[in-house]
Amino acid sequence: MCHAGRRYGSCAVVVPNAALQLALDLVGIFVFALTGAMVAVRKDMDVFGVLVLATATGLGGGITRDVLIGDLPPAAFEDWRVLAVPVAAGLLLAMLHNRLDRASRRRLDRARNAVLVLDGAGLATFCVTGTTKALAFGLGPLPAALLGVLTAVGGGVVRDVLAGEIPLVLRRELYAVPALAGAAVVVAGHELGMRGPVVPVAAAAVAFGYRMLAVWRNWNAPRPGGRG
Amino acid sequence: MCHAGRRYGSCAVVVPNAALQLALDLVGIFVFALTGAMVAVRKDMDVFGVLVLATATGLGGGITRDVLIGDLPPAAFEDWRVLAVPVAAGLLLAMLHNRLDRASRRRLDRARNAVLVLDGAGLATFCVTGTTKALAFGLGPLPAALLGVLTAVGGGVVRDVLAGEIPLVLRRELYAVPALAGAAVVVAGHELGMRGPVVPVAAAAVAFGYRMLAVWRNWNAPRPGGRG
Amino acid sequence: MCHAGRRYGSCAVVVPNAALQLALDLVGIFVFALTGAMVAVRKDMDVFGVLVLATATGLGGGITRDVLIGDLPPAAFEDWRVLAVPVAAGLLLAMLHNRLDRASRRRLDRARNAVLVLDGAGLATFCVTGTTKALAFGLGPLPAALLGVLTAVGGGVVRDVLAGEIPLVLRRELYAVPALAGAAVVVAGHELGMRGPVVPVAAAAVAFGYRMLAVWRNWNAPRPGGRG
Repeated sequence: MCHAGRRYGSCAVVVPNAALQLALDLVGIFVFALTGAMVAVRKDMDVFGVLVLATATGLGGGITRDVLIGDLPPAAFEDWRVLAVPVAAGLLLAMLHNRLDRASRRRLDRARNAVLVLDGAGLATFCVTGTTKALAFGLGPLPAALLGVLTAVGGGVVRDVLAGEIPLVLRRELYAVPALAGAAVVVAGHELGMRGPVVPVAAAAVAFGYRMLAVWRNWNAPRPGGRG
Repeated sequence: MCHAGRRYGSCAVVVPNAALQLALDLVGIFVFALTGAMVAVRKDMDVFGVLVLATATGLGGGITRDVLIGDLPPAAFEDWRVLAVPVAAGLLLAMLHNRLDRASRRRLDRARNAVLVLDGAGLATFCVTGTTKALAFGLGPLPAALLGVLTAVGGGVVRDVLAGEIPLVLRRELYAVPALAGAAVVVAGHELGMRGPVVPVAAAAVAFGYRMLAVWRNWNAPRPGGRG
Repeated sequence: MCHAGRRYGSCAVVVPNAALQLALDLVGIFVFALTGAMVAVRKDMDVFGVLVLATATGLGGGITRDVLIGDLPPAAFEDWRVLAVPVAAGLLLAMLHNRLDRASRRRLDRARNAVLVLDGAGLATFCVTGTTKALAFGLGPLPAALLGVLTAVGGGVVRDVLAGEIPLVLRRELYAVPALAGAAVVVAGHELGMRGPVVPVAAAAVAFGYRMLAVWRNWNAPRPGGRG
C-alpha cells in the first residue's frame, strides 16, 4: 500500500494525474453542493441553512468513505479548498436566488439540465475516486466498489435526510447503478493490474454516459419508482 | 486483548464457537435486511431502493459499532458473505412481492409472525456479539453494553430514518430493553471471568425470550407509546 | 501534540482547568439532553424513547467530533459520568412531565427561558471544547473551527433527524453563527500562541453572549427563516 496515498493528490497509485484528479473532485463537490443549496432554497431555509446543506451534500459522501476506511481525519478536513468550494457554491446559489425575477427563474429552470449534466460528472468522478481510494487502502473488490458507490451517493442521502425527505437514490434506480458500473470498471482494471489514466478515465466515461442515458430516458418516464 | 479478535471468527475470546457465531450473525443480518426490504416495498421504492435499504438495515448496526470502537474498515467490508446476505434478502423479498396475488399477500401477512421471531433472533445475536466485541476492544462494562444495544437497534434506526419515519425503537419500549438485558448478561459473565459458550448462549436466550414475551404482550396493547 | 490529550481532562493543552472543563461539558450534555427529552415527550414517545433521544442529543455532537478526528472509541464511552448525565436528564424530564398538572405546565413553559439560557451555555462550551480538541489533534484552523461548530450543533441535528423533523440549525441562522464566532476566538488564540484559561473563557463568553443576543432579538422576530 502506498503510504503517501492517505492524502489528496500525493500518491501516484491513487491519482494518476493529481491536478486533474483534484480539479474533477472539486467540480464534483461544487455541483453536489449546488444541489444541496437548491433543496435548501426550496425548503425556505435561510442563507446559513443553505450553506450548511450545501457543505453537507458536497462533502458527505467523501467523509463517509473516509470514516469507513479509517482515513481520519477525513481528507476534506486537510485541504481548505475542499472546504471552501461547497461554501462558495452555497453563497453563489443564495445570491442568485435573491436576485431572480420571474424571467430569470425560468432561465434557471432551463439551467436545470446543465446541473443534471454537472451532477452526472460529479457522480462519475466520485465513484471512481472512492473506489480507487478504497482499493489503495487494501479493501477487496466488492467492498471497494460499494464504497465507491457510497462516495457517489452519500452526499445526496445526507442532503435528503436533513431536508426531511426520503433519499432520492432510494427512489430512482438509475442513479446508483451508473456509479456501480463505473466502480466495477475501476475494480476490473485493478484486478488486471492496469496502471495509468486509462482505467479511471474509462470508468468515469462509463458512469457518466450511463447516467446521461438514464437522465435522457427518464425524461419520458418521470416516475421510475412507480413501476416497482 | 486478543489481537486476532479484530476480524470475524478468528479469535476464541470474541467467539467461543466461530462457525456458530458467524451463522447466527448472518441470520441476524438476513432478517434485519428482510425488514428493511419490507419497509422499502411498502414505500413503493423500486428494486434498487429495496436492495439499498435491505443492506443498510442489515449492516447498519454492526458498521456503527465498528466505527465507534475504531475497528476500521468495518468487519462487514472484510467478508463478502456479510455483504452478500442482505442483498440476497432484498432480492428475495422483491421477487416474492412481484409474484404475489391477493391470497399470497394474506399468507405473507401471516408470515409476519415468523419475521418477528426471526427479528427477535437477530436482536438477540447482535446485542451479544456487539457487547462481546466491545469488551474485546477494551471498553468498560457500561459502554460495552450500550454498544451491544446500538449494534442490535442501529440497523432499524438507519432503516426508519432513510424511510422518512421516526425510528420504531424510539416508540416501542420493549425493543431496546431486551437487547439491554442480553448485553447485561454478557457484561456480568465477563466481569465474573466466565469463558466458554454458556454466557453468550444464556445472554441470547434472555434477550430473545424477553423480546418474544414483549411481542406476545404487545399483541393486546399495540400502542405502548401512547401511555407515556 | 499532547498524547495524553486524547482523554478527558488529562492534558493541560486541551483543558487549562480540567475540573472546570469537565463540569462545563457535563452541563452542556445535560441541557442538550434535556432538549432531546422535551422533543421526545412532545412526540409522544414512551420513557425509553425519551432516554434514547436525550442521550443521542447530549452525546451526538461530541461523538461525531471524535469519529471525525479519529479519537476512537469516543471520549463519551470512556467516562461513565458522561453516559450517566443524559440518562439522568431524560429520567428527570420524564418524571416531571408525568407529574404535571395544568398550572405546572405553565410554569414549565416559563422555564423554557431558563432552558434557552442553559442551552446557550452548552452551545458555548461545546464549540470551545470541540475546537480546542480538534486543534490538539493537529487539524488546521478552518477544519478545527468547523469541528467546533459541528460539536455544538451535532447533537441537535441528531435529535431533529430522529424526531422526523428538519434540523432546527438549518432553519435558525443565529444558532450556528454564535458557535462559529466562539470557535474563531479559540482558533485566533491558538494562532497567537496564547495559553491559559483566557482564550477559552473569552471564546465561550463571545458564543454565549452572541447567542443570548440572538435569542433576545428572535423574541420579536420569531421566523428569521422566512426572510431568505
